[in-house]
This record gives sequence, C-alpha cells and structure tokens, in this order.
Amino acid sequence: MQLRYWGTLAYDGTAYQGFQRQAEGVPTIQAEVERAAATVIGQPVTVLGAGRTDAGVHASGQVIAFDADWRHGAERLLSAINAYLPDDIALFHLEAAPTPGFHPRFDARSREYRYVVLNAPVRDPLLGRRVWHLRGALDAEAMQQSAAALIGRHDFGGFGKPPQGENTIRTVLRSEWTQEPHETGFLWVYSIEADAFLQHMVRRIVGVMTMVGRRMQPVEIIPRLLHEGVMPVGLTVAPPQGLTLVKVRYSAGETPAEAITGKL
Amino acid sequence: MQLRYWGTLAYDGTAYQGFQRQAEGVPTIQAEVERAAATVIGQPVTVLGAGRTDAGVHASGQVIAFDADWRHGAERLLSAINAYLPDDIALFHLEAAPTPGFHPRFDARSREYRYVVLNAPVRDPLLGRRVWHLRGALDAEAMQQSAAALIGRHDFGGFGKPPQGENTIRTVLRSEWTQEPHETGFLWVYSIEADAFLQHMVRRIVGVMTMVGRRMQPVEIIPRLLHEGVMPVGLTVAPPQGLTLVKVRYSAGETPAEAITGKL
Repeated sequence: MQLRYWGTLAYDGTAYQGFQRQAEGVPTIQAEVERAAATVIGQPVTVLGAGRTDAGVHASGQVIAFDADWRHGAERLLSAINAYLPDDIALFHLEAAPTPGFHPRFDARSREYRYVVLNAPVRDPLLGRRVWHLRGALDAEAMQQSAAALIGRHDFGGFGKPPQGENTIRTVLRSEWTQEPHETGFLWVYSIEADAFLQHMVRRIVGVMTMVGRRMQPVEIIPRLLHEGVMPVGLTVAPPQGLTLVKVRYSAGETPAEAITGKL
Repeated sequence: MQLRYWGTLAYDGTAYQGFQRQAEGVPTIQAEVERAAATVIGQPVTVLGAGRTDAGVHASGQVIAFDADWRHGAERLLSAINAYLPDDIALFHLEAAPTPGFHPRFDARSREYRYVVLNAPVRDPLLGRRVWHLRGALDAEAMQQSAAALIGRHDFGGFGKPPQGENTIRTVLRSEWTQEPHETGFLWVYSIEADAFLQHMVRRIVGVMTMVGRRMQPVEIIPRLLHEGVMPVGLTVAPPQGLTLVKVRYSAGETPAEAITGKL
C-alpha cells in the first residue's frame, strides 16, 4: 500500500547546485534523495521539499515528503535511504505524513534560516564551508536595528524575486543577530523566521545589513527598500555558504522531528 | 635582524598526513606553513610546533615558532603568511616570542585536546569531518568514571608509545565528558589536558572509554591499563577526525593569543 512519508533532511550544500532537481547530470539534493529512495523502494520516487535552497546553501532541518509502497516500517526505510545517500546528505527522521496529501512546501506555516558571519581578521579553517568571512568592524547597534526593521508584514520586492505568479508580500516573525566570541573576532549569527521567502531573500537581507554594519549604507536603507519594493543594483548579496535552512514549522507547530519525539 | 616569532595555528587536518614534515611531496601542515613563510620572508624557514598531531587530526590552538628577518611588523607578517596558506590552514595570531630561544614543544607546560563523538542513529553531514559517528547507547556514568580515573600522574604505557628515549609517565590535569543535545542524539565532547601526550594517546583513551560506555569493557579496564602499562591488542582506537588540539599553555599560562589580547 502506497503511503506518504515526511522527514527531516540535513545536508552540506557545498557540492550541489541547490535543492531542486535540474537537468540530468547536474548535482542537486533532490536528485540524490530521489535516487537513494528509488534504489531502496525499487520504484521511481518524486521527492517534495519545503524550501528550494540555492546552490551552496546548507540545511539541518529541510522537510521532505514522498510516496512509497514499503512494508518494513519507517525506521528501516530511514536507515536504508541513509545507506544509499552520499556522506554530505542525511535523513534525520522519517515517518508517515500527517495527511495523505501532505505537501512540505504548501502546508508549511513558517521557515527559519540561520546565517553565520565570521567577523575576524583571519579566516577559520574549521568553519570554512559554513560561514561568510568578513573583515573590518561591524556596528552592532546598526546591525540589530536593521534586523528589527524587517519584522512584520512587508513588501519584500526590494530583497528578492517571487516564484512565477506570486506576490512579494511576506511576514517576518523573527529577525535578530546574536554574537559569540571567536578565536580572532566574533561569530555573528543571524536568525530569521518568515511565513515564506523570496529567491535569494535571506542572502540579500544579510548583504544589506552588513553594509549598514560597515557604515556603507544608513540604517534607513531597510525601511526604504521595504517601501519602494524594487531591488537596487550595487548592494552586497551575502555568499551562500553562510546560510542554513534550520527549521520548517507546520500547522500544529510540529516538524517531523517533534512529531516523532513526541511519540517516544 | 633575525627575530623569533610565535603564533597560534588552526587547521582542518583532513587533507594532511599530520603536522610533522615528512618526505618531499607528502602533504603536512609543517611543510605548508614553511612554504608559505619562506615565500613571504624570502628565505628558507624551519617551523617548530608544540604538538605532532596525527594524520587527519585538527587544531584550533596549535602553537608554532620560527625565526625571521622581517622589518614590517608581526601583523603584516601574519596577513602575508595567511595569504599564502591554503584555505584549510590559518595563522590566528603572531608576535615576537617571549624569549629568543623559545621552543613551542619543550617550553609547553600543558596541551589540551578535544574529542567529539556524535552518538546518534544518523550521521550529520554538517559535522562530518569533525566528529566520530557512533551508534548505540553510551552509559554516561561509566564514561564519566573512566575519564575521572585518568586524572593524575600515571604510567600511560597502556595508551601509547613514547617518542624515542622518553618514558611513559604523564600527568593528566583534566579529563571529562560533557554532553549536548543534537538533532537525532547527543554530541559527547571529551576534554583532556596533560603535561604531554604519547603517540595516539587521546585516540586510544577515547576508544577504550567508548568500549566502557558500550559495556564491551568494564570500567576497571582503565586502572588496569594504567597499572600494567602495556597496550593490549583488540581495543578500539578512535578515528582521527574527531580530535582537535585546542590549546597549549606555557609557563605564565599564556598562549600567543592571550599574550596578544593582554596587550590590546
């Protein structure tokens, strides 16, 4: 019997051209998971994902779903798929989806991304693939003000393009920087949660905020971009390697991990 | 004028055959730093290191020293060497050594290593190169007891070979496990500080402790190995990728980082 499964997926996106399947031979997360699942299940599998992460972007909490006719339990399906996935991709959890028609993208209530900036004179080889290394002082108050200005329902057309046919109105639920000391400087960790995101939106937001932090732009650029709704040229777009999709939330606030943990 | 410099070095050891220079063409940390420093200084450079980390072992606080005739200040020497180092190696700090004859290995008072075990059913692609992934339950009390039994002055001949001509008596100042929750399990972080270490000593210690944690060996194996002083066959040796040299301390408790920070 065909059953819809949902699960949490983690990956180091360095070697991939993003989540979404592209032409044959282009390395993508979706193609790898579909290949591994099809090998295990013995039938072609279409994998749905909650977020279309860009090339080089990571995930610790991407949510996926797929249909499978499998008689040996979700736990064994999880192990078997992990055995066929490359080392830089892993399925953290897997179980029967809450509804047969569950769709990880359309049913999602919010997504949370994290962006890490290493603000230090020297790069860190142990963080290399996971951070944006930025030299020079950052104005903490200006950075925090910029982040706070994004919270609420706004037209984010100044920060990214919508998928075909969609509008550019999004609601940001959380947007803040935290700082941790690091060997030669500070790690600046930006957390943003919104109902949905436009293409490159987090990387454009982080890019503009760091321009404000470096005093290359005034704090007022954020409300101005939200008001004007067009993307100006010449603004920094933060590179993909600092970005990680950390959580996708659903109607009951449940992720697959929480649904499973709640049952243990 | 020739001056001795000391500095803190960080590296992802994945691509290297350890710190110590070997035959021409074998990738080692020492050879890379000597090459970069010689390019900048314009003369052959011999780099001394505090700890001979194994192939695949990382460092965030290795201490090095070398002599150079350089007239443009330690800060510019640091930047220039970093510009010539590969991305997986970086010099965090550099300044004039406390004495002209300073030797990072012989003058060291203690070394601190950290070993990270991911105890979870599924691997984590975002930690892949930095942890040992170990499935199955670990007995927290047994692990902690094993770690505590190592503290003090003991014959560690049961945990490693000494460099030629040295004895196997070492003093362990700190030895403990801490646990952090992780998506599908726990990160177990082991910290050990000792006056000095034998070859493979931390990896053998971690290997035996995890055997105790998995109830494949009794806790008493630790005092027995410390008493007998010979390495039995058949014991687990933890793999190198979970190990990082985090700190080397000197007479005044000062690392190059602290010496520099104190001056700011």
